[in-house]
Amino acid sequence: MSIKLSLTGIKPTGAPHLGNYLGAIKPALALANNYSANYFIADYHALNSVRDPQVLRAQTYEVAATWIACGLDPDKVLFYRQSDVPETFELTTILMAFTSKGLMNRAHAYKAVVQDNAGKNQDPDFGVNMGLYTYPVLMAADILLFDADVVPVGKDQKQHVEMTADIAQSINACYGKQMFTIPEAIINESTQLVQGLDGRKMSKSYDNTIPMFVSEKQFRKTIMRIVTNSQGVDEPKEPEGCNVFSLYRLFATDEQQAALAARYRAGGMGWGDAKQELFELMNGFISPMRAVYDELMADKNRINLILEAGAEKARALASKKIVFLRKNIGIS
Amino acid sequence: MSIKLSLTGIKPTGAPHLGNYLGAIKPALALANNYSANYFIADYHALNSVRDPQVLRAQTYEVAATWIACGLDPDKVLFYRQSDVPETFELTTILMAFTSKGLMNRAHAYKAVVQDNAGKNQDPDFGVNMGLYTYPVLMAADILLFDADVVPVGKDQKQHVEMTADIAQSINACYGKQMFTIPEAIINESTQLVQGLDGRKMSKSYDNTIPMFVSEKQFRKTIMRIVTNSQGVDEPKEPEGCNVFSLYRLFATDEQQAALAARYRAGGMGWGDAKQELFELMNGFISPMRAVYDELMADKNRINLILEAGAEKARALASKKIVFLRKNIGIS
Repeated sequence: MSIKLSLTGIKPTGAPHLGNYLGAIKPALALANNYSANYFIADYHALNSVRDPQVLRAQTYEVAATWIACGLDPDKVLFYRQSDVPETFELTTILMAFTSKGLMNRAHAYKAVVQDNAGKNQDPDFGVNMGLYTYPVLMAADILLFDADVVPVGKDQKQHVEMTADIAQSINACYGKQMFTIPEAIINESTQLVQGLDGRKMSKSYDNTIPMFVSEKQFRKTIMRIVTNSQGVDEPKEPEGCNVFSLYRLFATDEQQAALAARYRAGGMGWGDAKQELFELMNGFISPMRAVYDELMADKNRINLILEAGAEKARALASKKIVFLRKNIGIS
Repeated sequence: MSIKLSLTGIKPTGAPHLGNYLGAIKPALALANNYSANYFIADYHALNSVRDPQVLRAQTYEVAATWIACGLDPDKVLFYRQSDVPETFELTTILMAFTSKGLMNRAHAYKAVVQDNAGKNQDPDFGVNMGLYTYPVLMAADILLFDADVVPVGKDQKQHVEMTADIAQSINACYGKQMFTIPEAIINESTQLVQGLDGRKMSKSYDNTIPMFVSEKQFRKTIMRIVTNSQGVDEPKEPEGCNVFSLYRLFATDEQQAALAARYRAGGMGWGDAKQELFELMNGFISPMRAVYDELMADKNRINLILEAGAEKARALASKKIVFLRKNIGIS
C-alpha cells in the first residue's frame, strides 16, 4: 500500500508565538513521520484580508522562515506557496461548476456573519466578499489538486474538508470514474492547551503571547512579565496552577519538573528565580530555531529559492493532474 | 493615441445558424476594423452546463471553425481558448477578494433564478451552481486580464461589464493606482432582426433556424421549408411581409431586391421559384464559408494549431499582467 498524503495549509499571519508552535506547527510537522506531507502557504487566501502588499509579502516570508526554523525539512516534504502553483486556480474554476450554491450557504463561517449582520439589522451579506464566501472552493482545490488523503485542521475547518469531499464525490459521480481522492479531516483533539502570560489561553487577542522569534533579551523580558501571585521569596509555593510552572512543564523532562517543584515547595525561591529557570529552559530550546529563523529572514532570497524548488516539484504533480482532468471533462 | 482593444467572448454552443451569423458573429467580426480585437472561446464557462466531454470538445471545435469560416483572421486578431490562458483563473481568484457578495446578488440572471424558485416554493438557490453564480467574476477576469477597453455584448450581458468596471475601480482605488483599464460595454443596438422559417425571430427554441454549415442539399431542403401563404403560381404576390423575401433582402443588392419584387408583383412565379432564388443567392454567399468550415472540421489538428498560436500570444500578454498585479498586491 502506498503511503498516504497529508496536506497542511498555512495562513501567513506573521511571526508565531509559543501557542502557535505547540498547538499547530509542532503537531502538523509530526505528520511527516506517518505521511507523505505537503505544506503550503495560502498567500492568495490571505489577500482576502491583507491589502498592504508590504505586509502580505513580509508575513509570507515570516511564516516560511518560521516553519523551516521549527523543523520543516524542504528536502523531505513538499513546501510551496499557493500562488506558485497556479493550477490551483484553474481547478478552482472547474470545481465551481460542480459546487451548489446551497453548499456554500451552509458554511458555518458564512452563516455566522449572516447572523451577526441580522443582529445589527444590516443586509445579510454586509461585509462579505466573494473571496471569503468562495473560500471553501479554493480550499477544495488546494486539497484535490494533490489528491490528499488527510487534511489536519482545527475543529472550525472540519466542515470545509467535508465540503471538499462532497464536491469531489459529485464530480466522481458525474463522470463515473475516480477523478479525485476523497479527503478526510484529521482533528488534532489532544491539542495542548498553552497558557499565556496571564494564565488564559495564549492568544493574540488576549495580548498574552510569548513570541518565539524575538531577540533573546526581548524573550527574557516577556517571560519576566508572567503573572504570579504575591508570595514572598521565603514562602513555600505550589507549582500546580502556577503560570510559570505550567509553561515550564511544556518543555521540561520529568526529572526537571520534579526538581523545580521541590524548589517551589521548599520555599526560599522567588518568582524571579522561577522565571529565570523557565527562561533558560525555553531559550535553550528556542535558540537554535531562532538562529535558523534570523538567518533566513536576513536572506529572503534563500527563502524564495526554497519555496521555488518546492513549487517546481508541486507543479510537476499539479500539471499532470490538470491534464488528466481536462481530458476527462472535455477541455482542449 | 494607441488603438483601443475590444474583447469578444464566444460561448461554444455548437454549429451556428443564420441568425447567429447576422446577429452576432458578423457585427463582432466588424469590430476588428476599428479596434485591436481579441476573440476567445469561453470553454470553461460552458462547463457549467455541458457535462459530456465529447460534446464540450466538439462544440469548441465547431465554434472555432465557424468563426474562422465567417471571416475571423487569426493573423490579424487574437483568437484563443479561455482554458489555454490559465492566467484567467489566477486573476479570477484575485478579483474574488475585491468583489462584494452583494454585487453578485444583484446580477439579473441570478435574481431571475431566485424569483423563479420562489414562484415554485423552492429554496431560493435551488439549482444554482457556484460556476453560474460567480460567472460575472470569471467574465471580469477575461476582460481585465487584457485591459480591454470595450466589450461588445447583448443587452442581457451589459450588467456584467458594469460589474467588471465596479470591481476594477475598487481595486484601482484600494491600491491607489491604475491596476486595470475600466472597460465599457458596446451594445449592438441595430442588430438585424433575422426571421426564421416561420417568420418569428430565428431561434433554436422555436425550431425555425437555417443552419449555416450543413450540406448544400440539406441547406436547400431547409430553405424549401420556409412558411409562405397558399397563393397559386399565377397570382401576383406581395414581397413585403413575405418570409422568403425578408430573408432574400438580407443578402441581396438593391437591384436584386427590386428585380425579385417585380417578379412577385407580376404573378406567374410560384413559391418554389422564389425559394430557389433565395437558395441560390444565400448558397453563393455561404458556399465559400462552408468550404472553409468543412476543411477545418476535417482537420481538427489545424484548429488546435491556430488556437494554440493565439494562446501563445495571449499568454505573453496575460503573464505580464499577472506579474504586474502580483508585484502590486504583494504576492511572491
